[in-house]
Amino acid sequence: MGEGEGDFCGNLLVAQSGGPTVVINSTLAGVVQEALNHPSIGEVYGAAYGLRGMLGGNFIDLAEESQHVIRGLRHTPGSALGSCRCHFRDSDLESLFRVLADRNVRYFLYVGGNGSQFVANEIDKYGKKIGYELRTIGVPKTIDNDLAVTDHAPGYGSVVKYVATTAREIAIDDQSMGDFDLVSIVEVMGRDSGWIAAGSVLARHMGTPFDAPHLIYIPERPFRDHEFLASVQKVLERNRYCLVAVSEGIRNPAGEYVRTSGIKDPLGRTELGGAAEHLQFLVEQHLKIKARTTKLGISQRSAAHCSSQRDSDEAYQCGVRAVRAAVGGESGKMVTIVREGDSPYVVSYGLVPLEDVAGKVKEFPAAWIDEGGSIISNNFFRYVSPLIQGEVEVPFKGGIPEYVHLEGAKRAEELLFQRGPAGS
Amino acid sequence: MGEGEGDFCGNLLVAQSGGPTVVINSTLAGVVQEALNHPSIGEVYGAAYGLRGMLGGNFIDLAEESQHVIRGLRHTPGSALGSCRCHFRDSDLESLFRVLADRNVRYFLYVGGNGSQFVANEIDKYGKKIGYELRTIGVPKTIDNDLAVTDHAPGYGSVVKYVATTAREIAIDDQSMGDFDLVSIVEVMGRDSGWIAAGSVLARHMGTPFDAPHLIYIPERPFRDHEFLASVQKVLERNRYCLVAVSEGIRNPAGEYVRTSGIKDPLGRTELGGAAEHLQFLVEQHLKIKARTTKLGISQRSAAHCSSQRDSDEAYQCGVRAVRAAVGGESGKMVTIVREGDSPYVVSYGLVPLEDVAGKVKEFPAAWIDEGGSIISNNFFRYVSPLIQGEVEVPFKGGIPEYVHLEGAKRAEELLFQRGPAGS
Repeated sequence: MGEGEGDFCGNLLVAQSGGPTVVINSTLAGVVQEALNHPSIGEVYGAAYGLRGMLGGNFIDLAEESQHVIRGLRHTPGSALGSCRCHFRDSDLESLFRVLADRNVRYFLYVGGNGSQFVANEIDKYGKKIGYELRTIGVPKTIDNDLAVTDHAPGYGSVVKYVATTAREIAIDDQSMGDFDLVSIVEVMGRDSGWIAAGSVLARHMGTPFDAPHLIYIPERPFRDHEFLASVQKVLERNRYCLVAVSEGIRNPAGEYVRTSGIKDPLGRTELGGAAEHLQFLVEQHLKIKARTTKLGISQRSAAHCSSQRDSDEAYQCGVRAVRAAVGGESGKMVTIVREGDSPYVVSYGLVPLEDVAGKVKEFPAAWIDEGGSIISNNFFRYVSPLIQGEVEVPFKGGIPEYVHLEGAKRAEELLFQRGPAGS
Repeated sequence: MGEGEGDFCGNLLVAQSGGPTVVINSTLAGVVQEALNHPSIGEVYGAAYGLRGMLGGNFIDLAEESQHVIRGLRHTPGSALGSCRCHFRDSDLESLFRVLADRNVRYFLYVGGNGSQFVANEIDKYGKKIGYELRTIGVPKTIDNDLAVTDHAPGYGSVVKYVATTAREIAIDDQSMGDFDLVSIVEVMGRDSGWIAAGSVLARHMGTPFDAPHLIYIPERPFRDHEFLASVQKVLERNRYCLVAVSEGIRNPAGEYVRTSGIKDPLGRTELGGAAEHLQFLVEQHLKIKARTTKLGISQRSAAHCSSQRDSDEAYQCGVRAVRAAVGGESGKMVTIVREGDSPYVVSYGLVPLEDVAGKVKEFPAAWIDEGGSIISNNFFRYVSPLIQGEVEVPFKGGIPEYVHLEGAKRAEELLFQRGPAGS
């Protein structure tokens, strides 16, 4: 029993927030398996569908789930508890604490990105204000890798592994077509952040600077049509094909997305209209060269069949460390991954005040972007390469990956979202 | 030594044609390994970049390649020999036969789809006409599965495995988001053929007819905007999300693509403008519901990291059987896969006159399409399910799949496509 593990007792609540990553459930598995080791933790609850379940008291009893299911979480994509993008309002705090008190929740773990860490911080502060003893620990998660302080965020390594794998496979296809110049464009996620597109650089064979993807465009740098066309032409002067990786959120020098659909999504965010299509249009109209596009979309954050073992392990450990921190008396902190060395790659786990990460953004370092906008810094390569090591073994059944579904989540879904007859 | 293996001796030429599949190189491995067993075959050549290498005499000496490389072909995407979409003209026949005679090629294997089988047939007929002894065997290959006579084509099983895997993963992500109705659209290949989109039905859990993908649209059936919107609404009456799989080539009742870019590709084909975007637009404009799109693009035919072991094995066997057929005295035939039974799944390999497949198209059977346009026929499920069984083990190095590159292809590439300085 560690420090602070004396008389403090109560139930634990864990919630998943925002968009899923392929390893967010590995974190959940770490939380559940570690929580059961601590006698000061009574029930182990999961909030169904994030904030929705937190405010409505829709809890999943995670101790009821089978060993098979908890183990299966380590390779299952999606948010197994359910998630939401609901906006948290200050007025929610009162009802939230009524629910927490009602269920005697004394440990609260919130798995999410910088927006969620902001909410965790508000919850921590409010508990202290009203004198409700709650130990709140944030657990990092985001494919975008834009969380402050932590060396990297669980979820990022896997999306980069998938994107780089796909980029290499597409490059091989591009290379084998010998009849015309070809521009191949792969659009990846990142409305504001180029971390994912930058990671496609891993598709290049080590030690070969001139290799696919030849050009990489990220939101952090203004996109100029004529510069892009000139760069493509330069690549095609010495190579038959040009592979381009582009973030969905690239913007022109005026700061506007290069193409939008003119539609707002339910969060009021502009629906992007296809960065890849914009580039395709430029190439075909101005250079009269065939261009083809691939938009990996949601598959990037759900392709568990091609996920990083290291990422999964680190995500699991973040869950474990969050439980230990809470049991040890910590609150108002987020677990961080601290890189101790690159070769061999060694990490430790730390804690940082939620204030230091809440709502903050870690930008892609300008020093890692070269003149032309391609990401070729060896420093970035050294940073990102360890994160994709190892392959998670996903069981297949009937030719398709077999993923698990929490029994409690099925029941919560029926309760929360019951619609017409389920059978017919 | 089989029938016909008497005094007939000469060199063998194999060529890959059209777009790659993830198992086209497995066929090549089968050809090379089997060819080396037959004393009546002298050199084993591969044509660099398909027709281009055939007409230019750019041959790769496949016996020179290492065992490591030939074995690696069994999991390497792209066309390892190089391919092209060049149009074959009758006037090419004379120069082709000059090259064949010059290199004493007496066995010619052409790996491709229905267009390539047409060319193979022309070559066979011309050889007979001019009295040049050449044994021409077609080897089936197409992700589209639209080759006539053969039960299915190598390449199809793997693309369907990848598409169904991705569809299931996206569905899990969709399901875990609990804050709004959601329509998720996955666009897959198929300009004229719905075989690939139909295969996404494998993502449904067996025995659950109402499961993602909920709606499937294929080019064989006219796409009507209002019917689509009504179907989406019907799904959303009982489910929070609706997953749609759609072929890139869906057409309106007038037979026009639902959306085009207005640009022609180098083959003069209309560049498609995004079937998924069309559906997204309809949903967001008319139903005011968030829709998100994934366009798997070239990754479908290059995702060797998620390929079907059965497909790979059958592709290999098709290469083996093609060599045996040629050595056995056959010509003007294509290797076919003959399904002997579904459970257990058993196939044999046959031969069919090239005339019977040349330029012909195997349409998706109307009987397998239900009223609403969704593909739910159990007969189709029984047909397609065996094709995705087993997972090819792809070696990873540094977190990324490790694929091979023929040494001869590297040299041919330098020769055929030399551009600016390769180094800088």
